[in-house]
This record gives sequence, structure tokens and C-alpha cells, in this order.
Amino acid sequence: MKILVSNIGSTSFKFRLFDFDGGMERELAAGGVDRIGSSGGVMSYAPSGGAKTTRSCACADHAAAITACLEAMAASGVLAGPADIGAVAFKAVMAGDAPAVTLVDEQVLSQMEYFYPVAPAHNPPYVAAMRSFAKVLPNVPLVAAFEPGFHRTIPQRRRIYAVPPEWDAKLGVRRYGFHGASHRYVSQRARELQPAARRIISCHLGGSSSLCAVRDGASVATSMGFSPQSGLPQSNRVGDFDAYALALVARQTGMSLEQMLKALGESGGLAAMSGTSGDMRDILSAMQAGSAKARLAFEAFVTAIRDNLGAFLVELGGADAIVFTGGIGENAPPLRWAVCADLGFAGIALDESKNAAARGEMRIEAASSACAIWVMPTNEELVVARQAMELLCDSSSQSPVKSSQ
Amino acid sequence: MKILVSNIGSTSFKFRLFDFDGGMERELAAGGVDRIGSSGGVMSYAPSGGAKTTRSCACADHAAAITACLEAMAASGVLAGPADIGAVAFKAVMAGDAPAVTLVDEQVLSQMEYFYPVAPAHNPPYVAAMRSFAKVLPNVPLVAAFEPGFHRTIPQRRRIYAVPPEWDAKLGVRRYGFHGASHRYVSQRARELQPAARRIISCHLGGSSSLCAVRDGASVATSMGFSPQSGLPQSNRVGDFDAYALALVARQTGMSLEQMLKALGESGGLAAMSGTSGDMRDILSAMQAGSAKARLAFEAFVTAIRDNLGAFLVELGGADAIVFTGGIGENAPPLRWAVCADLGFAGIALDESKNAAARGEMRIEAASSACAIWVMPTNEELVVARQAMELLCDSSSQSPVKSSQ
Repeated sequence: MKILVSNIGSTSFKFRLFDFDGGMERELAAGGVDRIGSSGGVMSYAPSGGAKTTRSCACADHAAAITACLEAMAASGVLAGPADIGAVAFKAVMAGDAPAVTLVDEQVLSQMEYFYPVAPAHNPPYVAAMRSFAKVLPNVPLVAAFEPGFHRTIPQRRRIYAVPPEWDAKLGVRRYGFHGASHRYVSQRARELQPAARRIISCHLGGSSSLCAVRDGASVATSMGFSPQSGLPQSNRVGDFDAYALALVARQTGMSLEQMLKALGESGGLAAMSGTSGDMRDILSAMQAGSAKARLAFEAFVTAIRDNLGAFLVELGGADAIVFTGGIGENAPPLRWAVCADLGFAGIALDESKNAAARGEMRIEAASSACAIWVMPTNEELVVARQAMELLCDSSSQSPVKSSQ
Repeated sequence: MKILVSNIGSTSFKFRLFDFDGGMERELAAGGVDRIGSSGGVMSYAPSGGAKTTRSCACADHAAAITACLEAMAASGVLAGPADIGAVAFKAVMAGDAPAVTLVDEQVLSQMEYFYPVAPAHNPPYVAAMRSFAKVLPNVPLVAAFEPGFHRTIPQRRRIYAVPPEWDAKLGVRRYGFHGASHRYVSQRARELQPAARRIISCHLGGSSSLCAVRDGASVATSMGFSPQSGLPQSNRVGDFDAYALALVARQTGMSLEQMLKALGESGGLAAMSGTSGDMRDILSAMQAGSAKARLAFEAFVTAIRDNLGAFLVELGGADAIVFTGGIGENAPPLRWAVCADLGFAGIALDESKNAAARGEMRIEAASSACAIWVMPTNEELVVARQAMELLCDSSSQSPVKSSQ
């Protein structure tokens, strides 16, 4: 069965096509379209193992971009036609306590709409894209694999906020956690490579970042809470913050709650602290050029990571492996070095030259370290494709798979 | 010089009177009045070493309560009269970046008023009481020792939130920290008793709670941030929370920002989670009686403490001493036991029988523990009295001490 995994941005559409056949899994192609809705859009496309091609491709909306990508796949021979797609799968962000992996139907879409205020940058474009797919491919099942799904094993003591009880019970105000696909992938992969690793701390550090404590394959703690704006400072989103400051800001500036949350979600994060951008490459360059603000942003980010690392060491009673992944986690040796500084008390030590030279999947701890330290590329789309495959196989053994619409 | 330390509640006034004479410090008396503004008020009074007496004492306002207490001190002979008081000192909560210890003047009062939305349960009664004292004792200096003062040594990387920069620079939205008097007292006392303890984690756990990491006598991290509603779940206040949930609650309930923050500050915390009360004694009793909600509140509280403990172990690169103080910290052995469980990876182990039997100042770690664990009563009022004394001696060597009004 061929499964198309979709990655949706407000003006972009990216995909990867996987084939699951007799227990084998293969990637067939990857590509996407950017600048949807405006002029100057470009489509990129690459069959697996083949060269990447780009061409200009102006798309009025996500439906047009999806159609163009389907045509490119058909033209390159990886798809016989739209009917050759077994399912379209989405790494979806937030539908509260909806099932972790589920067929997309009106109930799921309305759950995602309920959480628009929580994930304003994520849920609206996904819902729009899901509706577009349902029109373009009316007979293909759509599958949502929600990011909090991996965190359903987190104990209740970590899920509850100390809020008025009806906020939890009636409104769903609790800690959900995100980046489930990435934490699931790297923690599973670390256990394949290091079978004795029962206690793993996964550090997904990129455009958005979180840490996750994994015990025997199950998430037991994560740094994000109710919304993707919580936890570590993100690229341009605030991270953990004291809601009581809103009372002061409202009184002094006259801003509404909506305006303040928009500012925290768009004009905060590493970008706000560094005064440069929210991109760690820019921050590291500015630090080298002597920027005190860039250094402050770097140090505040490292401190937030280390705070969670410490919390999760205590949760797990120590760690067997720490994994760095994501754009920052894989590509910023100075950040990994700073995160692992002075952890000898917990038996954790980085090897400086291995850290500096790390590429791909690699162990970078010092010989003296009782804990493995991994650098590891993540593969969220593969996790999502696998989850969709499992759902469809399970449900097809019980009842016919139906389209969402 | 005699210094009266005042502890202000919205309907209560408590005091302790200290005498600083030739390098010696002595407590002379303690007492207070409750139910101010309503009928049925009671005054309690005890000279140091003497028996505590109580009598009915209906006071219309704080000024009347202050006058009544001054009369009681004069009647018992510890004060020659109001002019015998060298200063009145306050463990004040929040005036942003006002000096840590300062004479109370209109500028300080207006700074405290600015932060009313941040500390709604604390700042208004303190400002009212300071104004009352200025009327009752117009010639006595009033000294405010602010709770965040001890945390001024916390590095900038831990003080900044990833908010739009003008929120920090213009409005003062940053992490201040609280319980400074208590963390200062117990960390100093621990160093007196254990001079090799350079890295101390102070756990002030009571009606409100916070942790503090102390290196070489200076605070380097604390769990509370901008407001006293942040950090650990408090008795009836929320603790750390995701501000984005407010968008959802506002949309679903129609509550205003003010109403939501009031609910979080009054109807949250351990009380909300446990379904019993915010008092740890009630929660432990309910747990023993089989209450699942009480157990959940206990576990969530322990988890939040352990998260900070882990963060501070990483900050300090391990710890030489952990100190438990406050009503819960001193009197709840099952909580201390749960907090210290499975910390062998960091060289920390509690002795079960010492923990169960702890009274007063006592070390309760196991023989195998590389880190001392202390139970220790705090003495916030003594710290405040000392701070006032230092301020007045410093300023009197430079310029005459003036009354605040």
C-alpha cells in the first residue's frame, strides 16, 4: 500500500510517498510546492535515489498544489494514478483527547477547530488542507496521526494543571505534549541501536523544540504542555511564561488577550531574545560577532533545555541515552556542548571532538560517560506513514476502510 | 535598636519584636490580631520565654490593631513607648526592581501599587498597612525588605522570558522570584552548620512554596517567576500554567482575563487538584483514607518539586546540601520521602527512620548519601529585621535616617 504523508504550512505543501509491501517499507518520492496563493511558487520533486528537479508552479490554493504534486508523481511513474494511493496521512498537531491515530471525519475536524486558539499556527492550515484532499481524492482515506498521541502514556500527575477542576474536565485544559512522531522515532531507533537503553531523554531541537523522557519505549514526561507555545522558548513563540504578566501588560498597554497571545506566538521566542532571528545559525553567527543579546538568547535556550534534562534525569532515576535530533539538535555542536556541560555528577560526559565532527547517526559521549549520547536524524513522516498503515490494517481486519467524506 | 517586623494579611496583623544591641540579637516578643474589620477578633501576645496570652480584641482596621499591639508591648515592659521602636520592617512581596531593602516612601508605595495585578493577594494589604503605620508611628522609619531581593544574583539567562522585548524593558515582565527571606535564612544557616556546603538546594514548602539553588551563598535559580502564582502549585494558586489555555477558556465560558486570573489565584492549586483542601495535612489524611484525587494532588506536587530539584542539580553540577523548610517541608515526612526517591544517580539518599523522626534542625540523609539533607525551621522575620538593621546602620553612617512620611 502506498501512503502519502503531507506536511502542511499556511502557504506550503510538502509530501513524502512511502510504499509498504509485504513487510518492507520504501520511500518512493518526496517534494512540494511553496508560495501557495501568491505568484512565484516553485515545485520541487525527487524520486527516491533520483535527482531533485524544480520548476515554477503557481498554485491558487492547497487543492491546486496537491493536484500538481499528484501529477508529478504519476508522470515519474511512482504512482499509477490517484487510485494508487492507499491513504493520505497527516502529522496533525492538536485535537485534544481525540484518538492518537484516526480517520479524518467531521468529528475530528471539529475537534481540531475547537483547538484553534491553542495551535493558531498549526490547526487552521491542516484543517483546510484536509478538506482540500477530501475534494481532490474523495475515495482515499485520510489519516491524522496527532502529535500528542505518543504522550498518552504520561502519568496523570504530569498531565494535570492546578486549575479550577472544571477547566480540565469540561474544557480540556491539561498538558498534551507535542513532537510525538519525532520523539517516537528517535527513541525507537536508539533502542534498536542500543538495546540496553531503557531510560532515554530525547531532545528534539529545531524550529520548534521539546524534550521527552522515555522509559521502556513509553513517553513518561515532555516539556510542552497544553499548547505548542509552552515549554522551551521556540523560534518566535514564547515558551513557558507566567499568565499573570498578561494582567499587567493589558493594564499598561490596553492590549486585548487575543492581541497579547498573538504577540507572544509571533514576536517572542529566540528571535525576540536574540534581536537577530529565531534561527540558531544566525544566533551562533551573531554570538561569534560579539552580540551580547545573541549570547543571552543562546544561554537562555540552553538553560531551558538543561532544566528539563535535569527534571527528566530525576523522573527516570538517571539516563541510559540522550538523543539530539532536529535542525538544531543535529547541526549545532556548540549547543550540544553547552547542554552537556558539568553533568559528571550524573555520569554524563560528551567527547569534544566526536561532538564537533558528528554527522548522521553517531554516538558522541566520552569514554568515561555512563550514558550514551546520540546525534540522530529524525524521520517523522516515516512514523506517520507507519501509524497510518497500522490503523488501516487493524481497521480493515474489522470493518471496511471508508473515506472521510 | 528595637525593630518590629510586621506580617500583614488582609484581615490579620502579626508581629515579632527584635532587639539589636552591641552585636547581639534577641527576640523580645511576638503576637498579633486576627479578624480585623469584623467582630470576634482575638489578640495573642507572648513576651519571649513567657506564656502566650489571648484576649478578645475587635479592631476596625489595621491602624487599630497596630495601636493595640503597641499598647500590649508597652504594658509588658518590652517597649518604653512608641518612640522606643527604631524601625518597622516588612517582608514585602513585590516592587519589581526596587532596591532589595529600602525605606518606604511614596515612590516605593507606587511601585508596589504598579504590581497589584501581579500579587493581588499580597501587595494591597501591605500598602494599606504601611500607610497605617505611617499614621500611627509618624516618626519611625518603615523598611521594606522585598522577597525578590535575594534573587538579584540570578543570571540574566534565567531572568528573561522570551516575550516581545518591550514587555521586559518597559513593563518589567521578567522572572523575579520570591521567598527570598526564607531561602536566605536556611541557606546561610546550612552553611554555618556545614561550612563545606557550597551548592545548596533550598526547598521552602508551605502555604506557598518555592525552590532555590544557592551557590556560595548567592541565589542562582528559583522556581517562582514573574508572580507568586508561578512555579510549584500553591495551596490555592495555580503555579506554572500555559497562558494559551486562557484563549480557550475565554471563548468557551465568556470569562474576562481578570475573572480567569482570579479563578487561577483563588480556586486552583493543591486545593483544586485534591478536592479536599490546600493544606498538606488534609491531603495526607485523605490519601490515607483512600482518596485518589488527594493522591493525585500529592503526586503532582512532588513531581513539580522534583522537576525543579533536577533542574537545580544540573544548574549546580550536583548538590552538597538539600534543605527542607516551611510548614510542609518541616512536618510532612512522606512528602520528603517521595521527593528524595530514586536519586541515587546523583548521590542523594534519605534515611527512612531519621526522616520519620525529624524535629527542629536535623540531618536526615543516609550514611551512603554524598549530599546532606536537612530539615530546618526557617526564620524569615529575623532575616527581615537584620536587613532593616543593616540598611539603617549603613544609611545613618551616611545621612540621618528619616521617616518615610
